[in-house]
Amino acid sequence: MPDLTPERIVRLEPDAVVLLDQRRLPAEEIELRCASAAEVAEAIRTLAIRGAPAIGVAAAYGLALAASRGEDLDAAYDVLAAARPTAVNLRWALDELRDDPTPAHARALHDEEVARCRAMGRHALGLFPAGSGARVLTHCNTGGLATGGYGSALGAVRAAWEAGRVEHVWVDETRPLLQGARLTAWELDALGIPFSVIVDGAAAALMAAGEVDSVLTGADRIAANGDVANKVGTYGLALAAMHHDLPFVVVAPTSTLDLGAAAGADIPIEERDPEEVTDRFAARNPAFDVTPAALVTAIVTEAGVHRAPYESSLAIAARTP
Amino acid sequence: MPDLTPERIVRLEPDAVVLLDQRRLPAEEIELRCASAAEVAEAIRTLAIRGAPAIGVAAAYGLALAASRGEDLDAAYDVLAAARPTAVNLRWALDELRDDPTPAHARALHDEEVARCRAMGRHALGLFPAGSGARVLTHCNTGGLATGGYGSALGAVRAAWEAGRVEHVWVDETRPLLQGARLTAWELDALGIPFSVIVDGAAAALMAAGEVDSVLTGADRIAANGDVANKVGTYGLALAAMHHDLPFVVVAPTSTLDLGAAAGADIPIEERDPEEVTDRFAARNPAFDVTPAALVTAIVTEAGVHRAPYESSLAIAARTP
Repeated sequence: MPDLTPERIVRLEPDAVVLLDQRRLPAEEIELRCASAAEVAEAIRTLAIRGAPAIGVAAAYGLALAASRGEDLDAAYDVLAAARPTAVNLRWALDELRDDPTPAHARALHDEEVARCRAMGRHALGLFPAGSGARVLTHCNTGGLATGGYGSALGAVRAAWEAGRVEHVWVDETRPLLQGARLTAWELDALGIPFSVIVDGAAAALMAAGEVDSVLTGADRIAANGDVANKVGTYGLALAAMHHDLPFVVVAPTSTLDLGAAAGADIPIEERDPEEVTDRFAARNPAFDVTPAALVTAIVTEAGVHRAPYESSLAIAARTP
Repeated sequence: MPDLTPERIVRLEPDAVVLLDQRRLPAEEIELRCASAAEVAEAIRTLAIRGAPAIGVAAAYGLALAASRGEDLDAAYDVLAAARPTAVNLRWALDELRDDPTPAHARALHDEEVARCRAMGRHALGLFPAGSGARVLTHCNTGGLATGGYGSALGAVRAAWEAGRVEHVWVDETRPLLQGARLTAWELDALGIPFSVIVDGAAAALMAAGEVDSVLTGADRIAANGDVANKVGTYGLALAAMHHDLPFVVVAPTSTLDLGAAAGADIPIEERDPEEVTDRFAARNPAFDVTPAALVTAIVTEAGVHRAPYESSLAIAARTP
């Protein structure tokens, strides 16, 4: 059984940030040692660690490592903040740590992120009807690997499964990098939760066949109006869920909220190397898309379950200590 | 430049049906020789040749080969008809050939299928505004490879491009077998038509960004009410197109019509080996889905452009000689 403790996913040692290399999973469980802020940034950029909350934690550890090594902190901040553009957690974690970039502070931030996941799981439980097993569809990976422990949307699925409220998980494989088929499937397998991997294009047909009860995803950034940036493919899922009158629920910690972005149009969408799609022909590779708030049934943060109008419900969440 | 003549895609020789092995494209152009009806059926089952019209042509050649070899014709019919369940063209072509299973008859059927494609391309031209270049999104492969020459939806794109009415083609890669990224991209590259491959999940976001003008797909079977069975992922595309007020057009020859199926629910959906999706974890692999007629802007056959109500417009098409 894989070790999915928070320390295994990412931790700070005296001379390095050590993380489980998610590019190699599930074939190999290999730890990657990053000996400088620049190496942590490279690990984030190349997706050795990914998932909005997890890259925030890794960046915090990177800044603490830079401080302990006597690196220029402004330069370390900049290289880490520039590693990926869409997830707001990256900059949030760096800003949290900046005035006190100690190992103890970074570890506290990591602990708090995991605690937020467990709180989200408790809040989300109310969205699953008691006494019946839901068939939940999810996209990308939002488990312990994506958050530094426990998980956001997949943490909610786990909590609901432990409460007897989940029967089966449909796992979008999530092209081009297959975070669903590789990482979510690996986590669900380890947890003993029944699941099937599907190609991303099969989700709508499963909904039409009545085989899906709800859709749960994470988020990389949530704008003040409730628009959600998440792994490309999320928007199409939300459209299909709406058409089939299924709940489309986003589970993400408040560290993913960006109240400085009024709407989805203000969120930068990362375009990654087309070779991730095909190395033979021309390709486009947007890594994220934006789901309008109008398609989102509820947003679950550690502060609770937020519903439209999101301008007010999210503003309250952001003020929660 | 690849040879995409009808004879190269599939042909009958005195002792074999010879076809371009589409499983190996675009890396290798290798011909596969099938020396019996059973070998043709195996080539169809394993997708050495695929695409509803093309497998109809291959099956017709297989029955003609069986007749010339003195095989039991009923057994040959049965093994060919059972090769794949969803595309109705397979049984249609076998029924066409049954009473006169000669090489000349099979070749005529092949010629007619290609002629139908060219006619569809002419009819579809009216769906592209003159004097402007459309950005067309397509799914799977519906080119010469899928029809035995020229193509259905991709044939229509080709005709419109030659008339200056197409500017760019978005090619869904089409998991799990990547017919878009492998075959459609290869055909468009050979034709010199500008295109970009995208992951299937990126299509809806491109529509939201205003980068798509219309969606064109083929079909594996069309029911009497206009419901369309096609490669899995088509239904989600149709939902996204509807949400963005984009035309969703199906281009398919009348050999794809099954007026014996009242609606999509009457069409068998092939479930293929889960290992096509992942060989490590449990998976589901429906190869097709059904798009309700209500989402289809128009169906183009060689008889013309059909619009709702499809019960009457398709019935007229089926009567066209």
